[in-house]
Amino acid sequence: MKIIHTISEIRHYVKEQRSLGNTIGFVPTMGSLHEGHLSLARHAKTENQTVVMSIFVNPLQFGPSEDFDRYPRNLEADAQLADSAGVDVIFAPSVNEMYPQQQLTYVDVELVTENLCGTSRPGHFRGVATVVTKLFNIVLPDKAYFGQKDAQQVRVIQQLAQDLNMPVEIIPCPIVREPDGLAMSSRNVYLSPEERKQALSVYRSIQEAQKLFDAGHRSASFIRERVQSIIAVEPLAEIDYIKIVDLQNFSDLNDQINRDALLAVAVRFGATRLIDNTILVP
Amino acid sequence: MKIIHTISEIRHYVKEQRSLGNTIGFVPTMGSLHEGHLSLARHAKTENQTVVMSIFVNPLQFGPSEDFDRYPRNLEADAQLADSAGVDVIFAPSVNEMYPQQQLTYVDVELVTENLCGTSRPGHFRGVATVVTKLFNIVLPDKAYFGQKDAQQVRVIQQLAQDLNMPVEIIPCPIVREPDGLAMSSRNVYLSPEERKQALSVYRSIQEAQKLFDAGHRSASFIRERVQSIIAVEPLAEIDYIKIVDLQNFSDLNDQINRDALLAVAVRFGATRLIDNTILVP
Repeated sequence: MKIIHTISEIRHYVKEQRSLGNTIGFVPTMGSLHEGHLSLARHAKTENQTVVMSIFVNPLQFGPSEDFDRYPRNLEADAQLADSAGVDVIFAPSVNEMYPQQQLTYVDVELVTENLCGTSRPGHFRGVATVVTKLFNIVLPDKAYFGQKDAQQVRVIQQLAQDLNMPVEIIPCPIVREPDGLAMSSRNVYLSPEERKQALSVYRSIQEAQKLFDAGHRSASFIRERVQSIIAVEPLAEIDYIKIVDLQNFSDLNDQINRDALLAVAVRFGATRLIDNTILVP
Repeated sequence: MKIIHTISEIRHYVKEQRSLGNTIGFVPTMGSLHEGHLSLARHAKTENQTVVMSIFVNPLQFGPSEDFDRYPRNLEADAQLADSAGVDVIFAPSVNEMYPQQQLTYVDVELVTENLCGTSRPGHFRGVATVVTKLFNIVLPDKAYFGQKDAQQVRVIQQLAQDLNMPVEIIPCPIVREPDGLAMSSRNVYLSPEERKQALSVYRSIQEAQKLFDAGHRSASFIRERVQSIIAVEPLAEIDYIKIVDLQNFSDLNDQINRDALLAVAVRFGATRLIDNTILVP
């Protein structure tokens, strides 16, 4: 497996692969790889001859008081894991390689960015949409793979790829969980043992919501309140949001859940903000 | 010469040309072709095997009180002219083909869009940047050709191509003028004979500015006032702006012109808004 740090080299590599008739699967990550990322890479490898994984902690998508500086970085460990999952090349540019001058151009996706993490993290999705556009233009993949744990991110990227006629297919992949149910996240390493234990309430609440929904309950407020009651009992949990939204436009569903919906939860345990979700299909 | 109306067909055509080893030169236009557009196409043909010209009057870049509806459209005449200039294929999509659903994604370029036409035409450059990004993603050209008459547009597109790592080279081409000096524009057909005559003052004022500058004058306000006095004498002229700006960031130069600058002028004659410019290099 190769590790490439410059845009010109990855462009050259991709061009070479294309000339061999290989299709390109792309897995954009911020590194600190876990089983969730690796499942994306393995899925990409089943559908493409060549898998490119980017590892780039993108400053543009972090707010000023967020964890850009302390976000875990470990390229050596990541390279071993990526290799084991079938990645052919890691593209790991520096911040200066991606933003060599003042960035004046931004990609803004409206409507689907307004709720949930778009409210809690102003500017976050502008940063995501802009860097993903840049990475797509650099790597020119046939397909790109994103984890459904970041459900709103998936929706934003599907929208921008469609609206900007990007020649790439977006493949959403299921959430991967720890054996006890906690959704895999690079931020899980921040959790103290006690926070880690209480964080399980998030998954339990989502399971309960799914169970209620599957049993025929359709009241959004009823389900939200049950979710809230399960998480709020944990003394270290600080709820950011518990929302049920229309899966298409991400607007709040406050009455009956009569169309495809997303239950999305964001909760802080100490300094660590975790998100999780499940899709509710009537 | 082919005329293609759908995205899937032009993608197929371009892919075929690429597989033959041909490079793609791209000339995006709104049709109503004149010698300015044709000079872009001829230039593109000297540098590429295949020249794609798009003809699309983009609603996104017109303000609500602007001339989208009455903008001249004549695909048949355009096709003859394009053919004569060496264009291999015209891509002429419908509005519905380009915007099949509500467009939620926009490309915004900051700073260089704030002055000049960015002030006079709010939303204009967002519309331009967004449609050019879409067209680039559809046509995937090696090089794209733009007329320097729209100097700010050239600057915006250079910036967005660079910032978003688009795999395309932007080629600015010189202003083409009528024999009497009026800058070619599809909007010139709107002018009454009397407006047409008075519109020549714009070119005369720009020539005078260039002459003063070449003679060593460096005071921005002095040159602007001379330009203004030449245009303002025409009774039908309504000046939108006369500005001298830094050629790099398009901020006003109000004192000495001590770096590369652009003198840019926008003037209304009746309902018709004309723009013209010249570059001043100390």
